[in-house]
Amino acid sequence: MSNVFDGFLSSPQGLEAFGEQRFVAAMLRFEAALTAAQARAGLVPQAAAQSIIGTCKVDLFDTLKIVRDSARAGSLAIPMVKALKETVALFNPDAVAYVHLGSTSQDVLDTAMALIAKDMLNDIEADLRASTAALLALADLHADTPILARTLMQPASVTSFGLKCVNWAAPLVRSLQRLKVAKGRALQVQVGGAVGTLAAMQGHGAQVSAWVADELGLAAPFAPWHTQRDEWVALCCELGLMTGSLGKLGKDIALLSQFEVAEVAEPYESGRGGSSDMEHKRNPVASMVALAAAQRVPQRVAAMLTTMPQEHERALGAWQAEMAECSQLFVAAQAAVRAMAGVLPGLQVDTQRMAHNIAQVARGQTGATSARWFDTALAGQAGVQARSYRQALQVELAC
Amino acid sequence: MSNVFDGFLSSPQGLEAFGEQRFVAAMLRFEAALTAAQARAGLVPQAAAQSIIGTCKVDLFDTLKIVRDSARAGSLAIPMVKALKETVALFNPDAVAYVHLGSTSQDVLDTAMALIAKDMLNDIEADLRASTAALLALADLHADTPILARTLMQPASVTSFGLKCVNWAAPLVRSLQRLKVAKGRALQVQVGGAVGTLAAMQGHGAQVSAWVADELGLAAPFAPWHTQRDEWVALCCELGLMTGSLGKLGKDIALLSQFEVAEVAEPYESGRGGSSDMEHKRNPVASMVALAAAQRVPQRVAAMLTTMPQEHERALGAWQAEMAECSQLFVAAQAAVRAMAGVLPGLQVDTQRMAHNIAQVARGQTGATSARWFDTALAGQAGVQARSYRQALQVELAC
Amino acid sequence: MSNVFDGFLSSPQGLEAFGEQRFVAAMLRFEAALTAAQARAGLVPQAAAQSIIGTCKVDLFDTLKIVRDSARAGSLAIPMVKALKETVALFNPDAVAYVHLGSTSQDVLDTAMALIAKDMLNDIEADLRASTAALLALADLHADTPILARTLMQPASVTSFGLKCVNWAAPLVRSLQRLKVAKGRALQVQVGGAVGTLAAMQGHGAQVSAWVADELGLAAPFAPWHTQRDEWVALCCELGLMTGSLGKLGKDIALLSQFEVAEVAEPYESGRGGSSDMEHKRNPVASMVALAAAQRVPQRVAAMLTTMPQEHERALGAWQAEMAECSQLFVAAQAAVRAMAGVLPGLQVDTQRMAHNIAQVARGQTGATSARWFDTALAGQAGVQARSYRQALQVELAC
Amino acid sequence: MSNVFDGFLSSPQGLEAFGEQRFVAAMLRFEAALTAAQARAGLVPQAAAQSIIGTCKVDLFDTLKIVRDSARAGSLAIPMVKALKETVALFNPDAVAYVHLGSTSQDVLDTAMALIAKDMLNDIEADLRASTAALLALADLHADTPILARTLMQPASVTSFGLKCVNWAAPLVRSLQRLKVAKGRALQVQVGGAVGTLAAMQGHGAQVSAWVADELGLAAPFAPWHTQRDEWVALCCELGLMTGSLGKLGKDIALLSQFEVAEVAEPYESGRGGSSDMEHKRNPVASMVALAAAQRVPQRVAAMLTTMPQEHERALGAWQAEMAECSQLFVAAQAAVRAMAGVLPGLQVDTQRMAHNIAQVARGQTGATSARWFDTALAGQAGVQARSYRQALQVELAC
Repeated sequence: MSNVFDGFLSSPQGLEAFGEQRFVAAMLRFEAALTAAQARAGLVPQAAAQSIIGTCKVDLFDTLKIVRDSARAGSLAIPMVKALKETVALFNPDAVAYVHLGSTSQDVLDTAMALIAKDMLNDIEADLRASTAALLALADLHADTPILARTLMQPASVTSFGLKCVNWAAPLVRSLQRLKVAKGRALQVQVGGAVGTLAAMQGHGAQVSAWVADELGLAAPFAPWHTQRDEWVALCCELGLMTGSLGKLGKDIALLSQFEVAEVAEPYESGRGGSSDMEHKRNPVASMVALAAAQRVPQRVAAMLTTMPQEHERALGAWQAEMAECSQLFVAAQAAVRAMAGVLPGLQVDTQRMAHNIAQVARGQTGATSARWFDTALAGQAGVQARSYRQALQVELAC
Repeated sequence: MSNVFDGFLSSPQGLEAFGEQRFVAAMLRFEAALTAAQARAGLVPQAAAQSIIGTCKVDLFDTLKIVRDSARAGSLAIPMVKALKETVALFNPDAVAYVHLGSTSQDVLDTAMALIAKDMLNDIEADLRASTAALLALADLHADTPILARTLMQPASVTSFGLKCVNWAAPLVRSLQRLKVAKGRALQVQVGGAVGTLAAMQGHGAQVSAWVADELGLAAPFAPWHTQRDEWVALCCELGLMTGSLGKLGKDIALLSQFEVAEVAEPYESGRGGSSDMEHKRNPVASMVALAAAQRVPQRVAAMLTTMPQEHERALGAWQAEMAECSQLFVAAQAAVRAMAGVLPGLQVDTQRMAHNIAQVARGQTGATSARWFDTALAGQAGVQARSYRQALQVELAC
Repeated sequence: MSNVFDGFLSSPQGLEAFGEQRFVAAMLRFEAALTAAQARAGLVPQAAAQSIIGTCKVDLFDTLKIVRDSARAGSLAIPMVKALKETVALFNPDAVAYVHLGSTSQDVLDTAMALIAKDMLNDIEADLRASTAALLALADLHADTPILARTLMQPASVTSFGLKCVNWAAPLVRSLQRLKVAKGRALQVQVGGAVGTLAAMQGHGAQVSAWVADELGLAAPFAPWHTQRDEWVALCCELGLMTGSLGKLGKDIALLSQFEVAEVAEPYESGRGGSSDMEHKRNPVASMVALAAAQRVPQRVAAMLTTMPQEHERALGAWQAEMAECSQLFVAAQAAVRAMAGVLPGLQVDTQRMAHNIAQVARGQTGATSARWFDTALAGQAGVQARSYRQALQVELAC
Repeated sequence: MSNVFDGFLSSPQGLEAFGEQRFVAAMLRFEAALTAAQARAGLVPQAAAQSIIGTCKVDLFDTLKIVRDSARAGSLAIPMVKALKETVALFNPDAVAYVHLGSTSQDVLDTAMALIAKDMLNDIEADLRASTAALLALADLHADTPILARTLMQPASVTSFGLKCVNWAAPLVRSLQRLKVAKGRALQVQVGGAVGTLAAMQGHGAQVSAWVADELGLAAPFAPWHTQRDEWVALCCELGLMTGSLGKLGKDIALLSQFEVAEVAEPYESGRGGSSDMEHKRNPVASMVALAAAQRVPQRVAAMLTTMPQEHERALGAWQAEMAECSQLFVAAQAAVRAMAGVLPGLQVDTQRMAHNIAQVARGQTGATSARWFDTALAGQAGVQARSYRQALQVELAC
């Protein structure tokens, strides 16, 4: 069963990422890696470890039941660990005592979240690159194409469409740069045990944490971060910033696509952006997705920041709220960049209409000097800037 | 496929309400009511109407496919209307032209949302009543029971536990009152047609709207409210207020349940509120659900308010975002009241510990007059207030 | 010293309302009313009461110093009460013990806030009425004037400008209605004493509260509401809703004022909406103020909802944050309605351009039937609706 | 005139930073630097430049009038530029034409904001360092001191107070690191001219921008960022994260300071944290300030993210809202870190009470194995972690 509104403001990849199959699989990857590391450290006998690791296969579990049971348990990890122990018991009863050894619900959930986030960020970055490439290609093509510059929603002067494109691209390039840093810091394993002291690991805690991190392709933190959420929320802030930049892009496209302006249009695709009863409608649905995300994601960021004061060694309510908000934040942000990456390569550009609109404004000027502000030659100055800026971004992208 | 974090911060009822079965069924109820009203107005032939109404049965449709197709269409209504037309065509091709006549996506979606909201509000109100009853019973029992009054997280003086209970109940009683008003205004049909002018209804628009409203048990607005969302968002603000009041209740219970305070406790139920590895843990999970909601719902309200500036006759992004936020707001708010209604009747109260804590504070007073603030006789004054306030609330509840 | 950004997104009235003079004066009104009521109840000797009441004049106090000292005290009431006691001591040392008797910081601050809010709401309602009147006059004048209806930022069909105007007005009329109810519930005195038990009032608490309320023109609550903030936050939600509706109005005006659309314009006033270097600019600054408020106020509402879980008998941080947010919410909301009330009576309407834009769209239709959607005769149907809706709103306004 | 609620949730430094004197001075610094750079580029005659630069002294201006006039102009820069031109005209009429040459309101406002932010960040970083130093000193002293670890607000096991301290410090160290990066990217001049094309600079735009940046100690961006706000909002997100971490610290201190827990206390200072009528009260007011900020700042971040979709070359409403929100965000965040830096060096720690509380929990265990979770020897394992983590943070701080 899925929320019906998930469909058209999300991508299938986004919905799947936090679906029961993928998420329980990620939790099982953690349990397997933990057991393997503990066996290596001598905390778990090899035979028990083999039984546990061999059982950490998502196909062996009724993942929907685990989600259903989480309601009663008040935690997703508790029914998963219970199911894992029961299944291990079928094969090797002696191994049961070593399942989830010295670990805690938050260890498996935070680590699973990091694994899912890592995959989603790969998708997001690919879409950011595709969007950037499309915009920089347009910037190249239209470096000197005159277009009205508009401030406070009124014609102000002339710029070039190429400069607009490179200005749309620049924040996406910076998002790629900042996301790289943020994910390097945030995508960490969580191995802390009941209260973050690694007490049950008999002094091998740091080593086990490092081995788990290595196995899962995540970073190993200096120490557990059960109630120190800053790096994780920082990563989500980055997605908020990216969504804001995509919202600006979507809003500009929507404004330029208005019938009366008609300077750009999202590419038309049959069955997309139509109306339930008006055959003539061509709605800019990619912009719609970006604009919707830009109104939703800031509130997810606020919710996550609000939950940061997490009590003591594990919070009551705040951590649980943070996770739920985080999953929705990722889904909405990914949908926005996917939507934009889908239309930017085919963006329709009407340079004649751009020229026409400038001419109309210029014609209306009555002030002594105001006509000079609408001289299309001004696009040249913008073009110089567009070219050098575009080149600088290409260099940064290559880094 | 469902978001894994939906499980433990939602109730099954909440998740089902916005699941594909229930929501598509609600959309079909709208289409059937619309056709019936239009037939009555002479806009649709009786035979066609019978075919359409007979086809508006959710079991005839692949509801998951409708949700899936909404991604491409950018709207949930478009694939639903398409599927309805195709199914009607199987039985009576002549009727197809009368499906969804003169209506628009937003008509069916807003009305379906109102139908779902109506059901959820029934559940919510029942839980509010149950919670209030439990608290007023405690208020009666403990009207004069001394307990520390605490301000800025420090002992301040003595109050009575009964007064605390009636103070917890009062905002819930007011939520019931305000929700009644708000839902009376907000639970309206949406019958506006493409641009809210009812143009295709040949002058019968207002009449059709009234008949649809009557059939569905919703109010008929003066005029379509496609981009005038204030009544709808006002209803959601009420749920935000209710959740805030429940969050205060949850926070107080969590604070009073601390081991060192130990004045109240959520009732213990096997398998609920345990830990994945600490057998001694008894976590206050109902309070957790309420506290989590109290950190999430305010952001849903903010998102809905943010989306209110909806462009012209239908918004690009804002309306779509509003619906998605709204559904999550209802789910979180309902979970909070359900959780509280589940534990309040069995709340464990330790009056000896309350007395002990007062005595400990009183013993520590060194100021000349400060001991007077911790005289247990002060509970009497609070008790007088508790009783009269409780009585006033009972009267209001009976209205 | 004032925050420099307060200037152009606020009105002078709004800034003054929460300035030190007005607010300290409101606090002193509370103290005087409290003393008078306590004298009437026999709790304060008449001579002492006269001294205290006579001293509660804002001109006797260094209000800026009180604000400055609040930083150290962590409360605005503490330095005010201290200054009041010191000043009373100059005239009548025996009266000092009766200053602020049995009261608490939150009593004076919450009541002062209600007094200030009451005044601001008077201004807000007047501006709402002026805005509504201007819009309904336009609705009358342009009931049948054809204008493009636009959905998802694209031309959809034809409506009438009068219907647009009445649709802009309707939410403002409803705001007036809902504000009336909300303020009736929220504008209450706070008389609770240290922990809300009225313990120091020797059984006269309810009576004193009622007399204070009567004196100040506020309602008397059943019981103190120190940590039951729902009615207060509900009032602020109403301002959030009003701001959202004004934001929709501002956004539509901004969109219709674009050079390429040019169907309406804010009236031009010399020195307003210009540019620091472009003489030709006519910026829609009233819409700017409304749009800015519509992006800020939702977050203030979220902050207030977030602070609702206030601990025990007085919160640590949450209450203090709520007050600060509330004052800014009022200022921003009032500025939005003031800005709109300033321009709506003079709104410039270009009906020829409206017709021209429809014709342009109609000309471009290539679908078999799509031209019918842009028949200007469709405005007639909208006009019927506009007239009846306008009449209904007039009736509601008269209530 | 100042908002009365600014006093006790802000610091004097914070309020002054965005007061009219400091902010207008920063705007004048920009104008002087711009003129100097333009003179160097040959765009402004030396004599005119000298007149302008010599006039850019804040004492020459009625700064309150500039703020007042901003209301009518809809911009703070317009009355400032007007006043500057009028004042220059008094000394050298020929220079007037060169004032603010080729610049725009947003250039001066964004740059002034960056200058103010730079100063505030210096204060914030100093307080972060002081807070961190105090916490790491406590971590050293109490590395092995047993204290209850609490999860979901219930006793879970034993950790060490030193580990708690180092866990409080770690996010502050990371805030210092991330702020350093974020400010390096965000503290940039804005030199773009009317529409960001530097059109009036005759090809010298990039050079002028670089010289202005050099003069003001800010970075020079590749290109103007009028409507590309990501770096700026990213900096504000960092302050949001810092405030969240301080909120966690404040919440833990508030919880540990409860009478019934009594393990730590804010140092007592006469006249601070008292009550208006209860002599025995010792309120944790620094925690209050941090907790209040942690409920307000997330909403400022959300507001700023919400404003990111800024239209075209300058936004209508969104940019203006962003600036206002930003100033309040800085003030609240700075107040939080200032409050914490003020109390952490004197934090009172009661190790006996910590031991007592553990013993009380241990005594109550009835499960077969649950007593082991409350063995004080578990603090040793935590101590090992505390020491190594503390050392790692010291190394990072030294970088």
